[in-house]
Amino acid sequence: MPHIDVNPDLPGIRALMAFSPSTAEPLGALAEILLRSNDGLTPAERELIATHVSYLNDCFYCHNSHGEIACYYLNGDRDLVDQVRKDFNNAPISDKLKALLTIAGKVQKGGKHVTEDDVAKAKEQGATDKDIHDTVLIAAAFCLFNRYVDGLGATTPTDLSTYAPRAKQVAERGYGSHIYSTKQPV
Amino acid sequence: MPHIDVNPDLPGIRALMAFSPSTAEPLGALAEILLRSNDGLTPAERELIATHVSYLNDCFYCHNSHGEIACYYLNGDRDLVDQVRKDFNNAPISDKLKALLTIAGKVQKGGKHVTEDDVAKAKEQGATDKDIHDTVLIAAAFCLFNRYVDGLGATTPTDLSTYAPRAKQVAERGYGSHIYSTKQPV
Repeated sequence: MPHIDVNPDLPGIRALMAFSPSTAEPLGALAEILLRSNDGLTPAERELIATHVSYLNDCFYCHNSHGEIACYYLNGDRDLVDQVRKDFNNAPISDKLKALLTIAGKVQKGGKHVTEDDVAKAKEQGATDKDIHDTVLIAAAFCLFNRYVDGLGATTPTDLSTYAPRAKQVAERGYGSHIYSTKQPV
Repeated sequence: MPHIDVNPDLPGIRALMAFSPSTAEPLGALAEILLRSNDGLTPAERELIATHVSYLNDCFYCHNSHGEIACYYLNGDRDLVDQVRKDFNNAPISDKLKALLTIAGKVQKGGKHVTEDDVAKAKEQGATDKDIHDTVLIAAAFCLFNRYVDGLGATTPTDLSTYAPRAKQVAERGYGSHIYSTKQPV
């Protein structure tokens, strides 16, 4: 049960954003830029990083929400998403993405865990400064989002079939204010 | 040394924001709302929460930057800021702020560490739902900012006397784009 009085009809972070629209706006804008940009990393790669970090932070709502969005971009390949979530080193993804997921996992533990060697390995696989910047900021942002959701005890739907329609909505319409509007399907 | 090629003349997060202005804008807007609002918690209380969480995350740049801003609001009472940073339970602050700092410390560990009892204790001391929301989101946001700074190895000035002029600038002018402009004093 949420720790504060929020709209019970909205799941997860959506209820928190509806409670506080003034902070929802920059949070949504940040997610939009970090997760839907095609500059460097693809939206699918960005959502996979978000999913992996949310899984490490044990945020059920976030790793399922973003896992479903990644799955939507990856033409429904849920097995791939699940493997990246739990065991990316053995997943059929690029060595570059593996090196970036390694950095993301270090950021989840704390910024100082990222070493020069981690960054050098990512650069050897073709990662640019922007790719490394975006990876660190996506991982850091999910250390925010995951704590926001679980720190306020936001409602977490346990029926996994409810995540796919919301994922489709985000993939097609983005992270704008519609995601916390009660006038939209949730 | 920073892991990516950023302006060496800008310290800490300022260089990262200059590297990526598109993400700097929502990050600055979030900081502005969370740290400079007078609705409920005061700016001094908000900066103290930011300082304490940054200290727990061992982010030297952030806990000194925000500690100095708190100090500015508190008429130079650096001893108080230092006590809140390291041992708030014995600091001369309100029981409400102590209860909120307890919640912030739990968020730093992970969202699920916050208990109903922690929230009930804060409410008993007069904390509103908005105070609790803002405390959780400030703490979560500094789990982002701290990881962004240290995860990219941002430059951290070790001369503590350089923090006060920047703190004054932020306290008086806010978290807008001037903080990462090379045309402004840094």
